[in-house]
Order: sequence, then C-alpha cells, then structure tokens
Amino acid sequence: MFNKILIANRGEIALRVIRTCREMGIKTVAVYSTADKESLHVRFADEAVCIGPPPSRQSYLNIPTLIAAAEITNADAIHPGYGFLSENAEFSRICQENGIKFIGASPDMINRMGDKASAKATMIAAGVPVVPGSDGLLQSVEQGKKVAAKIKYPVILKATAGGGGRGMRIINAEDEFQHAWDSARTEAAAAFGNDGMYLEKYVEEPRHIEIQICGDQYGHVCHLSERDCSIQRRHQKLVEEAPSPFMTDDLRERMGAAAIAGAAAIGYEGVGTIEFLVDKNRDFYFMEMNTRIQVEHPVTEEIINYDLIKEQIKVAAGIPISGRNYLPTGHAMECRINAEDPRAGFRPAPGRITTLHIPGGHGVRVDTHVYAGYQIPPNYDSMIAKLITVAQTREECIVKMKRALSEFVVEGVKTTIPFHLALMDSEDFKAGNFTTKFLESFDFSVV
Amino acid sequence: MFNKILIANRGEIALRVIRTCREMGIKTVAVYSTADKESLHVRFADEAVCIGPPPSRQSYLNIPTLIAAAEITNADAIHPGYGFLSENAEFSRICQENGIKFIGASPDMINRMGDKASAKATMIAAGVPVVPGSDGLLQSVEQGKKVAAKIKYPVILKATAGGGGRGMRIINAEDEFQHAWDSARTEAAAAFGNDGMYLEKYVEEPRHIEIQICGDQYGHVCHLSERDCSIQRRHQKLVEEAPSPFMTDDLRERMGAAAIAGAAAIGYEGVGTIEFLVDKNRDFYFMEMNTRIQVEHPVTEEIINYDLIKEQIKVAAGIPISGRNYLPTGHAMECRINAEDPRAGFRPAPGRITTLHIPGGHGVRVDTHVYAGYQIPPNYDSMIAKLITVAQTREECIVKMKRALSEFVVEGVKTTIPFHLALMDSEDFKAGNFTTKFLESFDFSVV
Repeated sequence: MFNKILIANRGEIALRVIRTCREMGIKTVAVYSTADKESLHVRFADEAVCIGPPPSRQSYLNIPTLIAAAEITNADAIHPGYGFLSENAEFSRICQENGIKFIGASPDMINRMGDKASAKATMIAAGVPVVPGSDGLLQSVEQGKKVAAKIKYPVILKATAGGGGRGMRIINAEDEFQHAWDSARTEAAAAFGNDGMYLEKYVEEPRHIEIQICGDQYGHVCHLSERDCSIQRRHQKLVEEAPSPFMTDDLRERMGAAAIAGAAAIGYEGVGTIEFLVDKNRDFYFMEMNTRIQVEHPVTEEIINYDLIKEQIKVAAGIPISGRNYLPTGHAMECRINAEDPRAGFRPAPGRITTLHIPGGHGVRVDTHVYAGYQIPPNYDSMIAKLITVAQTREECIVKMKRALSEFVVEGVKTTIPFHLALMDSEDFKAGNFTTKFLESFDFSVV
Repeated sequence: MFNKILIANRGEIALRVIRTCREMGIKTVAVYSTADKESLHVRFADEAVCIGPPPSRQSYLNIPTLIAAAEITNADAIHPGYGFLSENAEFSRICQENGIKFIGASPDMINRMGDKASAKATMIAAGVPVVPGSDGLLQSVEQGKKVAAKIKYPVILKATAGGGGRGMRIINAEDEFQHAWDSARTEAAAAFGNDGMYLEKYVEEPRHIEIQICGDQYGHVCHLSERDCSIQRRHQKLVEEAPSPFMTDDLRERMGAAAIAGAAAIGYEGVGTIEFLVDKNRDFYFMEMNTRIQVEHPVTEEIINYDLIKEQIKVAAGIPISGRNYLPTGHAMECRINAEDPRAGFRPAPGRITTLHIPGGHGVRVDTHVYAGYQIPPNYDSMIAKLITVAQTREECIVKMKRALSEFVVEGVKTTIPFHLALMDSEDFKAGNFTTKFLESFDFSVV
C-alpha cells in the first residue's frame, strides 16, 4: 500500500480523498494555490505545499510544479480528483516516468476515451450501442434518406461545423427530408461557411444515465449500478440520484453488461464511468467514458455501502477486486450546492460565507470544504458543498432532501439551495418524470 | 396521522424529532426555557413556546405548562424525547386525559417498568432471566449459604440500605461467607443504621448489552438487535455500538427472544429498550426496561436502515408494524461529545462555542443542536453532539470514528473529543475486549 498520497486538487474532492487516506492510514500531501490557502483541505492534510497563484495553469494545472511537490514530500502516488489533470494523458505519463503512481487511468486509456471518435470506435467494436448515424458526411439527399430508413425516424440532421442548434433539423418522416436538407444546408453555409451535413438517430426524451464501473490490474471488471444525472443546466449536472427512477432490472442488466464490455475491451483499471443516453423506449447509447472519479460518486457509495475512493486507491496499489456486480439498496440523491444565483441564470456568486449551518441527522451526508468565514475564491468552480440524502425509497429520499435543504443555512453568498427546494416540490420531478431537457421548461419564478 | 406534535424536550433530541416530523409532513411545536431561547430546536420547529425559566422543574418538568402549550398550539400529540418527563406515568396519564396522544408508554407500563421490584417480577413471570438471588432479606448465615449454593459462587452480599460499595462483599466460596456476612453487617449498621442484607449472583466481567424492541397496538413485538453500551463512567454511557463485539448469532437469538417475551408480557406499545448484563459465559440477566427512545438509538438506525422516531410516531398513530426482527448489516458506533473536561473527572464545562467545525463525508452522521456562537447553558446535561460512524466492519468503523473525531473542532469549551480519540487507540477497545468496568482502569494520562 502507498505510504503517502499527494492530492493534485482542491475543494471538497481534495478533502474527500484525505478522509479516505486517513482511514486507510496513508499520509497525505495537499497542494494549494495562493487563493486557496485558507481551504480546509490544507488544514486536514498531513503536509501542504503551495504550488503557485491562480489561474489554474499556474498551479493546479502546472505539471512540473506538481511533480516537484510530490518529489519534495516523498509522495509515492498522486490522486488527481476530478477536473484539472484527472484526464490528462501527459500528466499520467509523466507521473509514471517519475515512478509516482497516478491513481487514475493509463495515458493510453485516457487518450482512447478522451478522443470522441476513437472512444466511439472502441465501443462499437466491443458491441456497446452508440447513437447510429451516417458514416461521416452525407453526399446527397438520397444517401441521407437511405441512412434514415435504416436507423429509423426520427433522425437529426447536423451541420459538421454546427453548434448552438444552428444547421440542425429534426426529421420525423421521409417526406420532410428534402426540405430539412435544403434549409439546414443554407443555414449552415450562412452561419459557418460550411454546409457539410451528417445524420444521427434522434434520441427521444433522453435521460442521462451512467454506469459506475471498477476494474483491477488482473482483468476483472464489475459494475456498481447506475446514476441518473438528467437534471442538468447547459450540460452541468445539478442533481444526481441512484438508482434511476427510469431503471428496470432488465435495463440495468443490459446497461451494466454493455459498460463492463466497453471497459473490459480496453483493459480498464480503476474506477470509471460510462455515460449513456437512454431514450423513451429504454434503448441506450454510449455518450462518453470518464476515466476518473466523478463529482456524483457519493450517491453510488450510499446505495451500495462502498467507499469508491478507497477502492480506487486499492486497485491502484494492485489489490484485486471481487469482480461481482453491486446492486442498489435504498435510494440516494445529491444536490450540488453552488455559490450561484439560480434566479440570474445560475451566475456565479463568490464572496465570504458569513454564517454556515450544515444539516445533519439520519440519512444526511455533507461533503464540503467550506466553513463560516470562508472566502469563496472567484477563480474556481462555484460548488461549495454536496448534500446527499439516503433513504429506503425515492419518495423518502426526496422528503429527507427537502428537510435537509431547509436546514442548510449559508449566509453571505447566494446559493442554489432555493432552486433545489423548488425542484423537490416539482410534481414531475417527484414522479421521476424528467429528461435532460427538464430544466429548459422549469419555472424559475418559483425559486 | 398526527397534524402537529409538541416536543417536550430540548437539545439534540428535540431537533431529532423535528427532523423526522418534517419528513413525515407533521407540524412541530418546540418548547424552550429562557436559557434555551437560542437553541436550534427553537429555530427549526414550526412554532415555539417559551415554558419558563430554568431549573427544569419550572419548565421542562412543568406538566401544566406543557399541557397548556399543547392546547394553545393545537398539538394533537406530545413527544417527550428522553429524560425529563419521558418516563413519567403522571404525564402520560394527564396527556391521555386531555386527549393528547403521548408518544411513549402508557401510565401502567411506565409504572410497572419504573418500579424495580415490579419490573423484575414481571420479567421472571415472562421467563426472562434476572440476576438470581435471595427472595428479599436474608434471615441468617445459613439461609445465605443455602441461596449461594443454589445460585452458585461467586455471589455478592449487599446491604439493603447500601450504596457506593459500602456494606457490599463479593464472596467466591462458602468458607468466605461467615466473615463477609459479619463484616458487611457491621459496616452497614455503622453506615446506614440498618444491617439488612440480601444476596445476588455476582456477574463476572459484565457487559451492558441492550435489546431495542418495538411493539404496536395489535400485539406485535419485534426486536431490532442489540447495542453494546459497556463503555460507561459512573453509569453514564460514553460510547455505544451495534452490533456488540461480544455478540454471537445464538446469543442474539436468545436475548432477542427474551426481550420480546418481556415486552409482549406487558403488551408493550412503542419503541423501548431492555437492558441486560451479560457475563463472561454469555449468560444474560435483565437489568431494566426503558420505555422511551434512548440517546444511543442512532447506532441501531444505522445498522438496520430504519428511522426509530418515525416508527415511534407511526406506532403511536395506530399503524401496525411488520413484526419481523431486524438483524444488523455493517457496524455503527456513537461517541457522545460532551462539554466536559475528561482530564478533570469529566467535570462539566459549559461556556460559549467560539469555533465549530463538524465532520462530514462517507459514513459520518452528526446529531447536534449547537452552532458556532452557541452558549451552552449550565442548567442541563453537557452533551453537545452525537458523532456516529458506520462502516462495513467494526475495524473500519473505528478508523472512521478516529478520522471524524480528528476533524471535529470545538473551540471555546473543553469536550470529550480527546478522550474518545484516546479510546479509539486503546488496544483492548479495538479488540472488543472490555466490560462495564473498563474505564475504571483506563489511562486518562494519554487523553
């Protein structure tokens, strides 16, 4: 087992890793930017090294400085957390070259999963479903109609240079094809100077459901059930839960098997997540693989009684996993408490926390690096706490979350707490009736 | 179900009950003394009523005022918490007479279990083992020897008027009897003016192990496994855990069956605890029954995934229980964080909490009514928080407790945190090798 782990991160995830290291009897080194010198992760680590000023490229993203910090403190492993360098192949490689174990994926795995085209090709080869579509750009309307007939309507026509919905058309039947083709090409040519088009199956009523997996150095891969992360705003997850209210035993078995097949195909080692879109018919499609721990990992921990960071460290140290899959018991939910103004488009609201009261009691977990008097630096992401509740049923989990949110007092900065309280009162949310588009029609006036 | 519950208590247990009521959609009324007006239970309840000044007999023990508060606020039930009026038959009766549901035992059950002799007789009749001994006072040495031969040595001779060890003798064999009898009687006569003696089996290497039970209005009684509360100082529990490290499946089955038989014999309704002494041979003896929720109930909640307060309220509202028993999954431990100086005989240390940092993360639960700036009143018990950890094994639970204790920052007052940290490092404690006498030989110099 490692003697000392340097945590190349900040905030709650740095503290999260320190906690598990303490429980494992492993010494810890915190690194911090000058903006973070008052952060709890600095106080709770056995040692702490200042690695420079913000912005992050001068500190948390500065590979030579991080390697030097690990060497000075004699750390034998680095935990990258999430974000920053956690999926940086070069960092993984340089750690390896310096004899420091990178607690994450190998450079090769990061490269293969980091590049969308290569990840998709790998998954197709492993038999994992991906969103079907044209093989590259379409040459003609006729070719488009042929592909559409094969993958079945509805389909979506997308400009290869597109973005923000421009040059994009949903087509429900063949007789709409010609008109959509013409108008999308005109729009794309005008907007991007490029009228190249490709076609994909249109995923109806999509949910973001991801499978947590874990692989060891001996070829064992298991899954640890799913998380539903459909409640998003501009692809930023706000609420995650496990199990998914949309899940069935059969779907979990199919998605779990696909995730394992995908991870096994690349000999995946460590914890990782395979993200899928699931449509209204419970057909699912690979989106991407995250080769690191995720923000929302606690909801999985709570329903399978498992410390994912501990497992990550054990696997990195060469300890084999059992290989069995883990099925959920009970229900867990996480609300991301961000220093943002939910009434003003979730605009970041850094500042000093003057009063803080953290909820507690039965079934309530809080992961946070902040305290009363803490100055939230404007340099980093705005998450200040993760509030997790666990109960026997989803209904109980939601009322517990409401109770915990109502006890959570953060004064001095605006937070997403009022948004979460309003969400917990939404009938559609309570019924489990939502897709990734849910917040587009959410009534923020009640927040 | 009840519309509104008045909580006739203060501190963490008042908050604990409010939390469950919120989750059940039941309105709450807090009552508070003038010394408690800044307590969190006042802030988190839907309504709050001041019931007078300290000491408690003018407020928390003042039955007419409490009944008036319930009537003014239209509460249809009263939850008494623990301590104060929770085992007061008169209060239970007056609530009943005023049409207010007392969420606890009936006056008759409280009386039967509150009187030691009547409780013991009830348990004997139900077939529950009690510490065997003489039937009342001994008339002669010869009678004493006969009883001792029957219940087997070692025995303990006790002065009926005794206390604090005076007039008490442990007798290991018959040839010690005459001398013990003479010296104990002389001592008792001198100390208490009463040389009456009775005899009991001496329980060797006693552990305090209690069985949590729950009964409904329809005659169902189940048990929810045990808690080990052997770590005590002058009969004050300091650390509790579940399951007991001394437990076996067979012993749990026997103790569970005895506890159910005892509770069923009196038609017990609600949650309750039957406390036993368990000796080194795993023979167990009834000590007493607590007809209320206990301080240490969270360790049971954590290992059986169950909200005991919710169950208490449901049973009081007439909802039947399933009747099945609950066996432990994982391991949970509770440390009582008291504002006391463990180096000065646990002398209470009230004062103002200037800085507070509460631990969090995976497997950590904190139940507390305090916050930074809170003034601990000198009028009540000194418990300021319950720190509970839960893990898959006892060993993991202890390291998690150590980690959480080391994160717990309370400035401004002395607390039991250093004692708990030293205890978690004790080899005997870690090995599960302790009795109720453990702290008598504990090395407090390491605290």
